[in-house]
Amino acid sequence: MLRGIPSTMGDDYQLNVLSLLRHAAVNFPNTEVVYRRSDGDWGRSTYAEEMRRVSRIAHALTKLGIGPESTVGVLDWNSRRHFELYFAVPALGATMVQLNLRLGEADLAYVVNHSQTQYVVVDESLLPIAEKLAAGSYVKQWIVASDTPSSQVETSLENVVFLEDLMGEAPEEFDFEQVEESTAAYAGYTTGTTGKPKGVYYSNRASYLHTMAITAGLKVGYTDVIMPITPMFHVLSWGFPQMAAGAGAKVVLPGQFSAAEMGAIAKAFVDEEVTVANGAPAIFAGLLEYIRAQDETPDLSRARLISGSTEPPVSLMKGFRELTGAEVIHAYGASETTPVVSVNWQIKPELGELDEDAKWDLKRSQGLPVAGVEVKVVDPTGEELPRDGKSMGELLIRGPWIATAYHKLDDNAERFDDGWWKSGDVAVINEAGYVKLTDRLKDVIKSGGEWISSIDMENAIMDDARVLEAAVIAVPDEKWDERPVAYVVLRDGETVSADEVREGLLEKFAKWQLPDVIEFVTELPRTSVGKLDKKVLRTQHLGEDA
Amino acid sequence: MLRGIPSTMGDDYQLNVLSLLRHAAVNFPNTEVVYRRSDGDWGRSTYAEEMRRVSRIAHALTKLGIGPESTVGVLDWNSRRHFELYFAVPALGATMVQLNLRLGEADLAYVVNHSQTQYVVVDESLLPIAEKLAAGSYVKQWIVASDTPSSQVETSLENVVFLEDLMGEAPEEFDFEQVEESTAAYAGYTTGTTGKPKGVYYSNRASYLHTMAITAGLKVGYTDVIMPITPMFHVLSWGFPQMAAGAGAKVVLPGQFSAAEMGAIAKAFVDEEVTVANGAPAIFAGLLEYIRAQDETPDLSRARLISGSTEPPVSLMKGFRELTGAEVIHAYGASETTPVVSVNWQIKPELGELDEDAKWDLKRSQGLPVAGVEVKVVDPTGEELPRDGKSMGELLIRGPWIATAYHKLDDNAERFDDGWWKSGDVAVINEAGYVKLTDRLKDVIKSGGEWISSIDMENAIMDDARVLEAAVIAVPDEKWDERPVAYVVLRDGETVSADEVREGLLEKFAKWQLPDVIEFVTELPRTSVGKLDKKVLRTQHLGEDA
Repeated sequence: MLRGIPSTMGDDYQLNVLSLLRHAAVNFPNTEVVYRRSDGDWGRSTYAEEMRRVSRIAHALTKLGIGPESTVGVLDWNSRRHFELYFAVPALGATMVQLNLRLGEADLAYVVNHSQTQYVVVDESLLPIAEKLAAGSYVKQWIVASDTPSSQVETSLENVVFLEDLMGEAPEEFDFEQVEESTAAYAGYTTGTTGKPKGVYYSNRASYLHTMAITAGLKVGYTDVIMPITPMFHVLSWGFPQMAAGAGAKVVLPGQFSAAEMGAIAKAFVDEEVTVANGAPAIFAGLLEYIRAQDETPDLSRARLISGSTEPPVSLMKGFRELTGAEVIHAYGASETTPVVSVNWQIKPELGELDEDAKWDLKRSQGLPVAGVEVKVVDPTGEELPRDGKSMGELLIRGPWIATAYHKLDDNAERFDDGWWKSGDVAVINEAGYVKLTDRLKDVIKSGGEWISSIDMENAIMDDARVLEAAVIAVPDEKWDERPVAYVVLRDGETVSADEVREGLLEKFAKWQLPDVIEFVTELPRTSVGKLDKKVLRTQHLGEDA
Repeated sequence: MLRGIPSTMGDDYQLNVLSLLRHAAVNFPNTEVVYRRSDGDWGRSTYAEEMRRVSRIAHALTKLGIGPESTVGVLDWNSRRHFELYFAVPALGATMVQLNLRLGEADLAYVVNHSQTQYVVVDESLLPIAEKLAAGSYVKQWIVASDTPSSQVETSLENVVFLEDLMGEAPEEFDFEQVEESTAAYAGYTTGTTGKPKGVYYSNRASYLHTMAITAGLKVGYTDVIMPITPMFHVLSWGFPQMAAGAGAKVVLPGQFSAAEMGAIAKAFVDEEVTVANGAPAIFAGLLEYIRAQDETPDLSRARLISGSTEPPVSLMKGFRELTGAEVIHAYGASETTPVVSVNWQIKPELGELDEDAKWDLKRSQGLPVAGVEVKVVDPTGEELPRDGKSMGELLIRGPWIATAYHKLDDNAERFDDGWWKSGDVAVINEAGYVKLTDRLKDVIKSGGEWISSIDMENAIMDDARVLEAAVIAVPDEKWDERPVAYVVLRDGETVSADEVREGLLEKFAKWQLPDVIEFVTELPRTSVGKLDKKVLRTQHLGEDA
């Protein structure tokens, strides 16, 4: 690293997430923070009031002994208190551990213990989860966050205090010290299908830089209204709580979320005139359905729906644009990347001449890296591949908010290399810089020195209207290394032969790439969260072979 | 400072300005960099091409011995090569020293010597300045940047090389190392009216963070077209070169600038469909005049004209909006602040009910601090004053891109305090957070324990249509500490009495605040750059008294 003449600037002014909320409280004191309570009612606060509450929470947590090096788990929905803890915990030099309430019991216990979490804030509605978790865990102090008076809350937990009681008469100012910026503000654990959850510890610096990058990348300002729908216990809700504060934008916190509550959230989305929301395509599909059912279609032409997790269907993107004027914007990231890596904000001006279909295809892709993040696609030897829209390789990612290791894991070499995180995603990058995921590394078929995207092949098989679903897996092959095997589910009453499937694939694949084995089945195995479980198919297939 | 659990993120990934250009070259390779040459012709390049040229420049500079701790002066307009040097010099761990070609000879020599600048890149059109500077300076190597072949350039300078010759066959790739982020990327010198210029050394970190903050604050993206009109040898042209690259936006570099060239620049502004430009109000007044003179008025509804240096007149702001749809946006900053502190981007939604006049008044003000910068107004004892729109005090500024000292100056206490820079500007901040400058600290009249804004009083005097100009200065007074004295220039043929002036002031000022002495003069003293020179008035007045 080169060192030159030192600057005269405030280089030791530490980047702290608290400063984002303070910015909002000082410069946007009257801007609203709207929140949904556990009883379903909505409340309204302001940034000035939130800063006062964060100060009172800081007093409360300090009284419990929480400070630098403490880990504070949070088991909560997208609530007002969760929002406040996003700032109050890191402000004390402590680390907020995201407890994903959808994790299995064993995994959740693993996360609490691996992170040595001694304090857990739990929303009253989630006490049953906490009660199961209590046995044998590190937790020495449970802090219940509730709108219900503490005397009316029943729990079998021991060592319980109530956050609102502790805050009681606490002063509305707290003398916050600067926190060294590489101190972990948050910790999140990956939920991979293989192995134990792995800990990603997000520094104040990383979170702050990420906030600035997405605020710029999504063009968010104080005329926006922001609704984080992605759970705040999951990949930091894409940094939306911090972004809202940093931008001085009104924020709408939807609270508890389940399919049954889609109506309430959709109504708030429209009534509060939300302009920026995040979520998975399924969430936005629900929102679109709600809007379609209204007598009067709202004008959402200022709205940008930041869609993550999987590629949004074109029908969803078109549906929103045509009906409401809202744009669905695909963004890509992961737990290891704080999480935003790339955003498909708008078609680049130079690509304005593409035809409509090509534009929609492009718009579905993972888009362009935000400034600050480097990406490259590499072959199995680690050599960078050309940006030609064709060369398929593993996507590697590097930057100031990209993980370079997992917490307390001795051997990180498998997933990290020289500052680059190996995403496990297979992608192509085109000449214009757009990233397009084509597969997961573990699913791609490495055959005869070439890679075949299992997802591309599945989509090609499903182009036949008689096919309901398809899954393509790689199986070992002595001559070719790997060969594809296809599992096909036909629609009721349809008949298709293996040769017809192969015939159909010839449009997009070379003859040598076609699957030798095509199995017709009645359903495909899925994981508990509904994802295709190719591991089961592979085990099945190898078992059959054995 | 609190230290907690270390993160697992890439916290040692250094924030380097080079990464902004690299981002553009990799993700926006075909986006244009349009530039005006010294002969007045326009050329077109791309970010990919600029990255290759920056690599070649890096080879050339390395060959000359430039590396970490080198200072490289640049004497150039807003040219293509200046743009390239913004990235190439810091990328080597060296510091680019802005040489303000409008400084007096002695001051320029002082800057070169104080910064121990051994290398100077000079545009061929500015050789006469360099030649004057050469005698007795530290400079050991002159590097001429020219479009003219070197054999045709004549100069009396010794130790001259030509940049394009050095770049010659240099490889188009350079193995850049990361630079420690607190290394000074740039140095600029203040041009105060009193004392020697003072050095502000901008770190890579400060410049990078500033870039992200203004990109977010101005909502700039890759569909924008950016024209830095503010000189690139002056307050880093507000960070526009770095912002353009980081956003992947097309950039239009207007080259040499003088009143005579306004037409060429205005034409390019319209033809290249510029959406974001910076400059002083006088520049934008010239642009408006050009547009008014066109047969067909262009639609500039996407354009945002970022206006610095002084408050833009309402007539200018209205003129642009009504004629073209363009918005004039006032921004505030200084050499010590990299420079953007606040931006008056849009009226806050909560103030939407203000009447038109109040909105224009607000829109002229310095606006809201960008996220990352803290401001406060303090009384002479350093106590923070309320944000009530009335309490007048010195504006103090703090943040990761705000200076905390001057370069090689032993006693910084006069202008810096605990990380805060004392701006010397007198301001009020209102309840909504808007900063409004009311005076310079040295001009404000401190009378009877209260402050009277000299500027407010001047404006109030000029409210009388018979008055052409007015200047109000503070003079020492035994009883009141200071008292205001007004100098008034009447329009031709008008007569106004001192009592009439006082009468008019009563609308806005208390009786005890009114000037005892009102002098009618035929003109006011001005500095070489046309600013009102109150120092001369004060000397004059005291001389008269003495």
